[in-house]
Amino acid sequence: MSISNAQATPSIQICRIMRPDDANIVGNVHGGTILKMIEEAGCIIGTRHCNSQTGDRCVAALARVERTDFLHPMFIGEVAHVSAEITYTSKNSVEVQVNVLSENIVTGAKKLTNKATLWYVPLSLQNVAKIIEVPPIEYSSPEQEEAGKKRYEAQKLERIETKERNGEIIMSISLPDRQTKEPYTVAFSQSSLIHLVGPSDCTLYGFVHGGVTMKLMDEVAGIVAARHCKTNIVTASVDAINFHRKIKKGCVITVSGRMTFTSNKSMEIEVFVDADPLVEAEKGKYRAVTAFFTYISLDKENKPLPVPPLKLEGEEEQKRFEEGKARYLQNKAKRLTDKERQQ
Amino acid sequence: MSISNAQATPSIQICRIMRPDDANIVGNVHGGTILKMIEEAGCIIGTRHCNSQTGDRCVAALARVERTDFLHPMFIGEVAHVSAEITYTSKNSVEVQVNVLSENIVTGAKKLTNKATLWYVPLSLQNVAKIIEVPPIEYSSPEQEEAGKKRYEAQKLERIETKERNGEIIMSISLPDRQTKEPYTVAFSQSSLIHLVGPSDCTLYGFVHGGVTMKLMDEVAGIVAARHCKTNIVTASVDAINFHRKIKKGCVITVSGRMTFTSNKSMEIEVFVDADPLVEAEKGKYRAVTAFFTYISLDKENKPLPVPPLKLEGEEEQKRFEEGKARYLQNKAKRLTDKERQQ
Amino acid sequence: MSISNAQATPSIQICRIMRPDDANIVGNVHGGTILKMIEEAGCIIGTRHCNSQTGDRCVAALARVERTDFLHPMFIGEVAHVSAEITYTSKNSVEVQVNVLSENIVTGAKKLTNKATLWYVPLSLQNVAKIIEVPPIEYSSPEQEEAGKKRYEAQKLERIETKERNGEIIMSISLPDRQTKEPYTVAFSQSSLIHLVGPSDCTLYGFVHGGVTMKLMDEVAGIVAARHCKTNIVTASVDAINFHRKIKKGCVITVSGRMTFTSNKSMEIEVFVDADPLVEAEKGKYRAVTAFFTYISLDKENKPLPVPPLKLEGEEEQKRFEEGKARYLQNKAKRLTDKERQQ
Repeated sequence: MSISNAQATPSIQICRIMRPDDANIVGNVHGGTILKMIEEAGCIIGTRHCNSQTGDRCVAALARVERTDFLHPMFIGEVAHVSAEITYTSKNSVEVQVNVLSENIVTGAKKLTNKATLWYVPLSLQNVAKIIEVPPIEYSSPEQEEAGKKRYEAQKLERIETKERNGEIIMSISLPDRQTKEPYTVAFSQSSLIHLVGPSDCTLYGFVHGGVTMKLMDEVAGIVAARHCKTNIVTASVDAINFHRKIKKGCVITVSGRMTFTSNKSMEIEVFVDADPLVEAEKGKYRAVTAFFTYISLDKENKPLPVPPLKLEGEEEQKRFEEGKARYLQNKAKRLTDKERQQ
Repeated sequence: MSISNAQATPSIQICRIMRPDDANIVGNVHGGTILKMIEEAGCIIGTRHCNSQTGDRCVAALARVERTDFLHPMFIGEVAHVSAEITYTSKNSVEVQVNVLSENIVTGAKKLTNKATLWYVPLSLQNVAKIIEVPPIEYSSPEQEEAGKKRYEAQKLERIETKERNGEIIMSISLPDRQTKEPYTVAFSQSSLIHLVGPSDCTLYGFVHGGVTMKLMDEVAGIVAARHCKTNIVTASVDAINFHRKIKKGCVITVSGRMTFTSNKSMEIEVFVDADPLVEAEKGKYRAVTAFFTYISLDKENKPLPVPPLKLEGEEEQKRFEEGKARYLQNKAKRLTDKERQQ
Repeated sequence: MSISNAQATPSIQICRIMRPDDANIVGNVHGGTILKMIEEAGCIIGTRHCNSQTGDRCVAALARVERTDFLHPMFIGEVAHVSAEITYTSKNSVEVQVNVLSENIVTGAKKLTNKATLWYVPLSLQNVAKIIEVPPIEYSSPEQEEAGKKRYEAQKLERIETKERNGEIIMSISLPDRQTKEPYTVAFSQSSLIHLVGPSDCTLYGFVHGGVTMKLMDEVAGIVAARHCKTNIVTASVDAINFHRKIKKGCVITVSGRMTFTSNKSMEIEVFVDADPLVEAEKGKYRAVTAFFTYISLDKENKPLPVPPLKLEGEEEQKRFEEGKARYLQNKAKRLTDKERQQ
């Protein structure tokens, strides 16, 4: 990649050595660390592109991340290479595709660890409620543009759907006394953290980076999974995440997670992010994001271990389990189709 | 200070510029940031002193922090100077006294912001369950030694008392749906966070630094206070904290806080730290630390604001309020006596 | 050191325990961590001194760091002591000399790890383009003042030279697909990272701390060195670095490194820092800093290993290699002279 022509072909590459604080005690880099780097690359390239014209200055805000799989574990001491490219622009949004490679700089081994697709919306710096127009990119062929348009329409539809589904109602997760709960139940492993938004969590314009939110979500999901399995657990995939409402500096974020489904070798955890503007309390608490994380459990040689089945209590948990199972089977079918297509 | 004579006069000085991440959005440095620096200075000087003899190598573990007041707010951009000195040694423990000064390097203004007293116990590196003997320090007068011995006996007694009071029972704080709760009640503001212990939180020997724990405690207490007042709040003081049980790498820490008492211009928040060894779950969850933090609410000129009175529900909350009031009156009386003595 | 007389003898001491994130996976503290602490000490003492008179308030901005050697590796768990002293003042600049000691608080061993000389320029807080006058310090002898003046003149000359040499042209490092490159070539190991400047990277006045930039430069140089050797590598020295242009909050920094020279036991890496004002794109990208880092490769007992020779491709690489060799021989000769003088 050449730096000098970055504006012409909008692409960027970030790389960074993985540190002890980026990983769990076994040395596996947290999925959340990777999600945060992916989003940083997307934010840089999106902001740069949307300011490449005259007119209002703006910052690219994360609107959506498509479902992404973690293909291989990454380890402390490896270098993560995150490369991002703008692949589609609509009137008011930018699609960024990101690839993540891990490189063991001692052995030279390289692995593709993630592919992700993110959607950004440019918000004016003068007036944060105003979405500005995105300068168009050039496509190498009409087919490429057409394919991008299809992806754009599909995600738009889904965003509208989840917005309606979520509503503004906050169904809080009650956190009962874990001591009295039976192992392997939903109540036993459910967890919640609060985080006071600090300056480093935010863009220059006072809103929490989408990547920071995803890192916290992964942290809670990981604790839920570890409480259930009591083994070394790693992020296997994240379902599409929609960011419907921005989170402002000075908010307290509550991130809660509960297990919804277990297969033989995987667990699905639903995560909620609620924002609470501490000082401007009249604005009220609101649900900012929700998502499903899938985790697997690994033995000492990084081979998948069986997952203890979830003990369901009550109809609601049963219903959520069935929905999780449907998502699991759908993803499995999709992976099979993708594999066949590649052959 | 010269390095070469550090062993002879056991003292150390740490200083650091305060950054945005050390402070709240108004620019006031978090009490927890200061407590963490105080403990780092204590740990360095304690470990250094206990290894100044031949025999087992050891690391100084924090056993207790005496009650400490935050005399002046500190701000981003100021330099914090933390100086620590060993003031008493018993057979198995070390008393460290720490002063914190804030310096505005632009105006040159300096203020004493904290005085703290910490007790450390040296744990053998070969066998972490073994407490080694502390080399004695030299006192400038027999009176000085006698005064130190009195402080030592007093804190020992208090440590035994709190150990019995806490017991091994974990009374968990239930976190009900805040939406349904009335403002200014205990249930409305109570909060809880979880933190997965990472490598940078620990000493080289795999135990969480006392300062890291205190920083998390201050974070939760601050969120409780902000939820109650909805204004800019700062730490005014911390009651004595006893560290009865160590927290190991790989644990999940749950830090919970609830308001116990309000006076006209202050709030008292009780904070609990529970450790949960995720992977070695057979060891069970245990209560590691408890403490009382006092917060005040400030206006834009950093003047104290009135605090909304706490709405009590039930006998238990009433009882805790009365106990908090007793602590408040006792500290007030003590401050008056100290003032008179100084005049 | 007593705080009260800090103005009288302009000196300061910073110390801090080295944590896992400060070091590589073998436990060697990164050279960049040390450079960042050195610069923090220099910035505190420089800012304090330049504000010790009446008149415009100011902040000391790093203008230049003289060549510095890393004399001994430092390890996780050791305490770094950084002491800084003002040794010369010209009309508009301040020379700060800094010593770094590592202390193993368990064994008591202490080692001098670095000596560094930094030049600061005080920028007015009212008008960041205005350089204010520096209050003079007192010298213990006329010889001391004369020697300082000579150092000042020498560095001034060199600053002017490098400014001309750098020009404003950005010769970008192209980052081709490493897969297709032959090991031990320049193209194989060259690397680049991107960093979005956050609030904690900056002084209160919105400019990146020189120490933050140096830490990123060392990180890239370390990746280049590790890619070439595939062993444990550590920073051996840094050539003089001139900071010609400030980097503002909100910029994206691209830091690129390429190997220029190898001797039997050392590698020289050239590092470029380019700043890109993301939002105010009309201001254009500019080269902020360049420098040469020297790395060595260590075995498990921390003994130097032979370095694989660099495979040169093309005339330009040959020319840069010869220039690197000249710097290497010059430094070697200087070290010999210094040694002889000390005997």
